[in-house]
Amino acid sequence: MIQKGLDEIEYPNLAPRLFDPVKYMLAGGGKRVRPTLVLMAANLFTDDIQDAVIPAVGLEMYHNFTLLHDDVMDKAPERHGRETVHLRWNENVAILSGDAMQALAYQLIAKTPSYCLKEVLDIFNQNNIEIDQGQQLDMEFETRDDVTLDEYIEMIRLKTSVMLGAALKMGAIIGKATPERAQILYDFGMNLGVAFQLQDDWLDCWGNPETFGKRIGGDILCNKKTYLRIKAESKLSRPESYRGQTEEDYIEMYKNYYILTGAEASCRKAISEYVNKANACLDQLNMPDEKLSLLKALASKLENRNA
Amino acid sequence: MIQKGLDEIEYPNLAPRLFDPVKYMLAGGGKRVRPTLVLMAANLFTDDIQDAVIPAVGLEMYHNFTLLHDDVMDKAPERHGRETVHLRWNENVAILSGDAMQALAYQLIAKTPSYCLKEVLDIFNQNNIEIDQGQQLDMEFETRDDVTLDEYIEMIRLKTSVMLGAALKMGAIIGKATPERAQILYDFGMNLGVAFQLQDDWLDCWGNPETFGKRIGGDILCNKKTYLRIKAESKLSRPESYRGQTEEDYIEMYKNYYILTGAEASCRKAISEYVNKANACLDQLNMPDEKLSLLKALASKLENRNA
Repeated sequence: MIQKGLDEIEYPNLAPRLFDPVKYMLAGGGKRVRPTLVLMAANLFTDDIQDAVIPAVGLEMYHNFTLLHDDVMDKAPERHGRETVHLRWNENVAILSGDAMQALAYQLIAKTPSYCLKEVLDIFNQNNIEIDQGQQLDMEFETRDDVTLDEYIEMIRLKTSVMLGAALKMGAIIGKATPERAQILYDFGMNLGVAFQLQDDWLDCWGNPETFGKRIGGDILCNKKTYLRIKAESKLSRPESYRGQTEEDYIEMYKNYYILTGAEASCRKAISEYVNKANACLDQLNMPDEKLSLLKALASKLENRNA
Repeated sequence: MIQKGLDEIEYPNLAPRLFDPVKYMLAGGGKRVRPTLVLMAANLFTDDIQDAVIPAVGLEMYHNFTLLHDDVMDKAPERHGRETVHLRWNENVAILSGDAMQALAYQLIAKTPSYCLKEVLDIFNQNNIEIDQGQQLDMEFETRDDVTLDEYIEMIRLKTSVMLGAALKMGAIIGKATPERAQILYDFGMNLGVAFQLQDDWLDCWGNPETFGKRIGGDILCNKKTYLRIKAESKLSRPESYRGQTEEDYIEMYKNYYILTGAEASCRKAISEYVNKANACLDQLNMPDEKLSLLKALASKLENRNA
């Protein structure tokens, strides 16, 4: 349904080259997590989820816009194994086609049925400004050495988790859920999103190299601030590389640093806590288990994933 | 009213530095033409234009977002006599705060009263994607030597004129005009916008240097494609500078080239035609002259401006 919706987007005729990078981004794959969450949430409250498809596609368009501009800001060479837009074309093309994606996303969101257009638009707007705030904090953190765990969690909450919450809340509203239930689903998504991001930090050290998709220890080598590093540094200064040390040795030393300082255990505990918070939200919905099975499976899959 | 609306924008608390460049852009001045048009159009149909203020401010926010990202793409050093955001901060800040301005603009537009939210949002969305298309064509034209006059007019229509039309149409819809009258005002604004841009091309050569604000001949010196140049080149190859020629001589030679090829006369004729088209739209409104006096004055001021 989502792929069909993406395929059926009507691009304006004038200046067709503006939309080549847009199509390139959307063809880059990805798991379509956000639009799937929109449809899953709508489906909790209605059997006919057709009304949710175009807004779901709009959210996926928006997500891809944020990836496109983030790649420019991060000077990232690759995304999903393909050259990024600013390298394949150039930076101006990446900026402008990103802006066009944002406008196209809003055109799709504007097709939300009138009974909930205002509510869905408000959720979407709130999400969009928060994502920009998250990206701002992320950039500020790069040059700061005193980032606290609370600040870090706030940053990942804004940068990545709120969109999972927004996806579920939009779907719920389109499915005519009560405001209370829509908000509970938002909280579920946000907590799950934080757990997901923390799990990502953990997997960078202890994921399965066969399936993780990224190099194990990548965050360590590029000196990235993660939950593990912030927590460990609050206990003990971080180690320095020594003469003759290989990259593998350096990664191994850091993993031991994270274990010895308790950062590894603390990270796993935090993941569990956020998953538990998410599950507690589902319980508050007071819905039959079989209705919630997909969302519960999602939470459980996340807690046990190793890649 | 507009300045008050701009002053009362509520910025989110988290990541406050994200909004510093936004405030800087909005404090940069400008004539607030677009929000003024929103209010003028609303006022044609209603005495209480309060409902139009926040959407008008949203449009001004959006306009400033396009200026901010255009400045990045054009590597412009100055805007309204002040350093551009990408120089005062850096390029990433300019990209991200521009994205935030787009999101903030939509938050303001979402406050349009519910009786016309969907219509105003559709006009706004259409405008936004067209502006991106115009900027795309403008960038493509830089490396093309076969741009036709029709293509040029289409580009300026998309890049600058549609927003004047959209401003008037939004105001009219908020003022509860009929769809026909709202569309007529759109056409008025679009035609006036094209005339304004062509006048800008003409003033680059023959404007009053005391009041034009930009250096006379600036377009000629930076080799910019304008109506004058495209028209002149369709008659006669453009002149080349000769040994020992000063910049002033070069500009003078180009002005003569434009006169001798009839490009100057053609440009003035085109301006008149677009102003006439605009005025014809006002006549179609069938409204008392005193109601339309402000818009008529605007058209007449434009045709006779020399700076």
